[in-house]
Amino acid sequence: MESTKSLPTMLTVDAEPYPYAFPPRHTALLIIDMQRDFLLPNGFGEIEAGSLKDVQASIAPTKKLLYAFRQASLAIFHTREGHKPDLSDCPSNKLIRNKGCPGSAQDLKVIGDKGEMGRLLVRDERGHDFVDDLQALPGEVVVDKPGKGAFFNTNLMLKLKAKAITHLIICGVTTECCFDTTFREANDRGFECCGVEDATAGYKEEFKSSVLDIIHWSEGLFGFVASLQPLLDALAPFTWSPASVSDKTFSQTGPIFDGALDIPSLQKAYRVGLSPVTVIKTVFDRIEKYNKVDPAVWIHVETEESALERARKLLTECSDLSRLPPLFGVPFSVKDSFDIAGLPTTTACRPIARVPLKSAPAYDLLLGQGAIFVGKTNLDQLGTGLTGCRSPFGTPRSVLNYDYISGGSSSGSCVSVGAGLVAFSLGTDTAGSGRVPAGFNGVVGYKPTRGLISAQGVTPACLSLDCVAIIAGNVSDARTVWDLCAEYDEEDPYAKVTAPIQRHINSTGLQAKTFNFGIPPPEALAICNPVYRRKFDESLQCLHAMGGLLRPIDWSLFEKAGKLLYEGSFVSERLASLPDDWFEKNRVHLHPIVGEIFGTVIARQSTAIQAYRDLQAKALYTRQAEKTFAYDACGIDVLVVPTAPTHWTVEEVLSDPIATNSVLGEFSHFGNVLDLCAVAVPAGTCPASELQGKPDAEGVLPFSVTFLGGSRMDGETLEIARRFENDISSTA
Amino acid sequence: MESTKSLPTMLTVDAEPYPYAFPPRHTALLIIDMQRDFLLPNGFGEIEAGSLKDVQASIAPTKKLLYAFRQASLAIFHTREGHKPDLSDCPSNKLIRNKGCPGSAQDLKVIGDKGEMGRLLVRDERGHDFVDDLQALPGEVVVDKPGKGAFFNTNLMLKLKAKAITHLIICGVTTECCFDTTFREANDRGFECCGVEDATAGYKEEFKSSVLDIIHWSEGLFGFVASLQPLLDALAPFTWSPASVSDKTFSQTGPIFDGALDIPSLQKAYRVGLSPVTVIKTVFDRIEKYNKVDPAVWIHVETEESALERARKLLTECSDLSRLPPLFGVPFSVKDSFDIAGLPTTTACRPIARVPLKSAPAYDLLLGQGAIFVGKTNLDQLGTGLTGCRSPFGTPRSVLNYDYISGGSSSGSCVSVGAGLVAFSLGTDTAGSGRVPAGFNGVVGYKPTRGLISAQGVTPACLSLDCVAIIAGNVSDARTVWDLCAEYDEEDPYAKVTAPIQRHINSTGLQAKTFNFGIPPPEALAICNPVYRRKFDESLQCLHAMGGLLRPIDWSLFEKAGKLLYEGSFVSERLASLPDDWFEKNRVHLHPIVGEIFGTVIARQSTAIQAYRDLQAKALYTRQAEKTFAYDACGIDVLVVPTAPTHWTVEEVLSDPIATNSVLGEFSHFGNVLDLCAVAVPAGTCPASELQGKPDAEGVLPFSVTFLGGSRMDGETLEIARRFENDISSTA
Repeated sequence: MESTKSLPTMLTVDAEPYPYAFPPRHTALLIIDMQRDFLLPNGFGEIEAGSLKDVQASIAPTKKLLYAFRQASLAIFHTREGHKPDLSDCPSNKLIRNKGCPGSAQDLKVIGDKGEMGRLLVRDERGHDFVDDLQALPGEVVVDKPGKGAFFNTNLMLKLKAKAITHLIICGVTTECCFDTTFREANDRGFECCGVEDATAGYKEEFKSSVLDIIHWSEGLFGFVASLQPLLDALAPFTWSPASVSDKTFSQTGPIFDGALDIPSLQKAYRVGLSPVTVIKTVFDRIEKYNKVDPAVWIHVETEESALERARKLLTECSDLSRLPPLFGVPFSVKDSFDIAGLPTTTACRPIARVPLKSAPAYDLLLGQGAIFVGKTNLDQLGTGLTGCRSPFGTPRSVLNYDYISGGSSSGSCVSVGAGLVAFSLGTDTAGSGRVPAGFNGVVGYKPTRGLISAQGVTPACLSLDCVAIIAGNVSDARTVWDLCAEYDEEDPYAKVTAPIQRHINSTGLQAKTFNFGIPPPEALAICNPVYRRKFDESLQCLHAMGGLLRPIDWSLFEKAGKLLYEGSFVSERLASLPDDWFEKNRVHLHPIVGEIFGTVIARQSTAIQAYRDLQAKALYTRQAEKTFAYDACGIDVLVVPTAPTHWTVEEVLSDPIATNSVLGEFSHFGNVLDLCAVAVPAGTCPASELQGKPDAEGVLPFSVTFLGGSRMDGETLEIARRFENDISSTA
Repeated sequence: MESTKSLPTMLTVDAEPYPYAFPPRHTALLIIDMQRDFLLPNGFGEIEAGSLKDVQASIAPTKKLLYAFRQASLAIFHTREGHKPDLSDCPSNKLIRNKGCPGSAQDLKVIGDKGEMGRLLVRDERGHDFVDDLQALPGEVVVDKPGKGAFFNTNLMLKLKAKAITHLIICGVTTECCFDTTFREANDRGFECCGVEDATAGYKEEFKSSVLDIIHWSEGLFGFVASLQPLLDALAPFTWSPASVSDKTFSQTGPIFDGALDIPSLQKAYRVGLSPVTVIKTVFDRIEKYNKVDPAVWIHVETEESALERARKLLTECSDLSRLPPLFGVPFSVKDSFDIAGLPTTTACRPIARVPLKSAPAYDLLLGQGAIFVGKTNLDQLGTGLTGCRSPFGTPRSVLNYDYISGGSSSGSCVSVGAGLVAFSLGTDTAGSGRVPAGFNGVVGYKPTRGLISAQGVTPACLSLDCVAIIAGNVSDARTVWDLCAEYDEEDPYAKVTAPIQRHINSTGLQAKTFNFGIPPPEALAICNPVYRRKFDESLQCLHAMGGLLRPIDWSLFEKAGKLLYEGSFVSERLASLPDDWFEKNRVHLHPIVGEIFGTVIARQSTAIQAYRDLQAKALYTRQAEKTFAYDACGIDVLVVPTAPTHWTVEEVLSDPIATNSVLGEFSHFGNVLDLCAVAVPAGTCPASELQGKPDAEGVLPFSVTFLGGSRMDGETLEIARRFENDISSTA
């Protein structure tokens, strides 16, 4: 049976000290350490602490809670305490304190010693894993932690922020130890937490009651404590019955595919038995049809047969409908500057095309989550351009109007998503190449903070500024893809460690809704065409209505940073990845405009001294940007700009290829220079007739607004963008 | 009465679950939140929680404990919970949870509301500060924390590591809330903690007993709990009597100054009444005498009268002997590339000399701690050189032998410390300028991780690689100075935020003593003169005896990184801070060798493309270095190298100024390129006759070993260096 009701904004359950209200879409279940080592005989817990009676009794209630969260498709986090086999992540006080106790038996076992379920508290050992009843499913987050608190030296905070979680329902063992420590850490970080009395237990009953009393004492010193049943009751209306789910099997006949390619729709359809074969057939139908509209989208399309084979393989690998990986059967494309083993990477530039042996890690991670690769998309040659008109593989057009440019350089990626051919696409964005074309095709273009997604296996444009971008139909899908392919890659010299973001979140009250934003001043917005100018004002009204507070900013900082990119020496880095004589030897094979640009760069003869001056300026502006995005009452949470100042026709661009291109980057160039994250979001449409150059044009074109956030503030920036996307679509 | 006994390595007190052993020099007292807001009527605590009886009763025992730590000169940390006036650091759940409680009185006050002692839990308000009896003294660390746990969003971990703390004795309020949360955080991070039962309290007695039971349950789940008296008894033999201290006043007649300028000796002498006037007179006597030995140490010396005036001013400002700031009366020098308001900054290069209006922040911070500035020291012109032979202000010589070079570029700084003219000096170290001359003068040269000490107000050499260095007589003094002047400066674009170092410490057992280290391979060490080679082997024996484990490393990484500095484009950055035509216009005014070097750099005509390639290589090598210093069983904690391969005579350098200089940087050039920290430590002496060039020379010359650690691992690296310093001096 399908979920009968859609989830409300808030749910409330009885709790101590007073009813606990939580927004289900922003709430995660956090299950602490339900590992064999703590729950089963001869595990670490029994060796150290004794009786397993209470902790074992917590398994069944925890299972009920876990099922309720699964059925309602809410976020689920599991933690495991344990250490690397070399114990290098185990502090010595933890390792040897027990052994140091004079009363201890000589043969007392400590962490790392061999027990009946493998080495005690060591990762990958049987005892370290969850008990059978509480194993994690694909898509649920498993956090391996070296401490008792789940926030120390783990990616928990990062993952919670990535999923826009503000509320935690916490259960697990032991109440007095890891449960309580984690609860306290979560509360300090701003999460509104509720412990579940029947689904937590410790080794001594009196410890448990005292710990829970302290948590909710004094009107909620650390948060709330609820019983299991009210929670189950609150979630019940939004679940499938477990029985019916386990009955389901895939079927190529039933259920009918409604054609929607957004990730939640596909997940939902697959969970009730839709076959990915059906989806892939539809996708290839659409690709074939769209090729007649616009033959310039793809550089390579998989054969339908090979994609179907992948779909069938997924079916056999993932036959249990309750255990589908999060991107199961989700079709996607990648820009043809990403390496895929065995396929040529052209970067729209035949002289550098080669067939790699290894795929880009970002691509591999998506495949690992069940996504289905459909093809490699067209792009402005070498990623050099924002128009989409600089490829020897043809010029893709805006999905809304064939006369208008698709934007670039991730042109084909954005068209493939905008035309409904795939659910999402991987592009790149050094100077706006993911944002600008997303804006021109009515889709979302998200450029995470540089270094969060590995840029290995991606043809460099300007290596130290390059960034993988995600093109998707909506902000949530972009966030989902990011969450699944943002993994620290030590082979990427520019990868950022997933260091904790030392900022709390605001989970409740007005603070959870208000935010500060900055915009360019009127003189900077004057570059926009009048209809964009008007649409941007409408967007600002929407932001105000959402709780946005406009704050003054020093725009000159962003202007100066943007100019560094092409007016300074930075553009020379585009040649740094190629041999010295490469340009001279290959100029004739290049797209004429790209050739002209590279020629100009070389003729500029920028010196190393100029490069170091530009880099010093970059360091200074980046620091100033940090202050602008400071986390205080004056700092902004997001900078909001039109994604591009205008939308050119292909004709306009061809008549003046370099100047028109340069205009397009006005509001995107500075993003990577200042180490910001950015997401371009559709913000309504405007009549084509109102745009310059085409007073007689019919139909509408998309308008887009970009939200830029501080370095690593991706989670927060995406959440503001999502709320805007929701509100603007209901008002526009 | 002076301390009767010197502190032992370990002390032990009765505790639960078994006796608690702690190394006093590595133990801090951590006093949690003894603020008026929690302890006095009408404060936040009384409003929220009710009875103050128990918490007020904890003040007197805490005071006793604090006094015992002060008398024994041990580290003391105080935490305060509270928020910025704009409450931007207060998560909304904390701010509004009380107000959200339906049973609450309508007029219940929350954080930020006006109370009788100012706004509740807001910094700088009266209620936020400590109760009168427990005010912090200068030199004690005050940690302002937004959460209940003292490690979230604070610099506590950084400050504990800076002081090499491994053990914490924890007291304060409230037991059930901030005391317990912080105890748990500290335990996860590896600190061996002991709570003091009589010096902690909460608002409910049953909570307190339960929390303490949980802490020491199961052979010390989180650590130890002791009573106050055993701790007082254990520390008593190492204290002055409080009565006698308060009787002390400064005196220009008694006590006799023994001449030792190390910081603890000065602190101890000042605390029993030595006057800084006496010390300054001695220092100026020594300077005058040493000018006859070596007139090239200083570019500027303060007048004795102005230094004495400063000393007298300190005396009137700090008349209470129990409240002296940590650098009270400590004489120091600075390299003449640091700005001091009103004095010319020459950088040993008259064409760029100017008189700044503002001093370098590092200098100001030291003055603020009571240090006395004595003069500005000579240096290789523009910081360009490792020999000390490139200054128009003369050539300083090694303090051990006038024929031998002082090393550079921080030549005068190292001589001023080595000759006992000052306690410490601020230098700089881009390519080894702090380490190499420290090695040649028998002193410690410490180059922190770049960006920890502000480089504002320091003449740039190669701005993005420049680093302030600290020259001191021993490792502990270098650490103390670093701790006091390493403060995040948002005006320095290259400053690193004091982000938490996400690595635990090993406080106990064998793990607290063992470490992994790497060394250059024999073929790399072949550049050393034979006696250095032998001395280095002796150092390795010492490292093994200390618990060091030699691990294989890929030395080529360090070689390649070192070569980037002078064989690539990086040296061009030395010109980036000067106007384009500066060199041409000023060449005649430059030191001939510096002029030749700059001329060579300009003639090289490095391009921006080469600069970006070099920077990409730097990013790659830096990542590889991170892996080399990884925190696992294979990674190294420190790389150990000879500070320099040999010690030239002045004659040798003058006969081939560039080649001899280049040899000296073999083991130092890569330090900043790879973002490492480094400390050069004296490692015995060698007969001058054994060094090349001077077979007939008399006397000895110093040998020095440098310890390099990973980025921000300064605390750990200094501790290994300190242990080496201690052990090598007892064996050498």
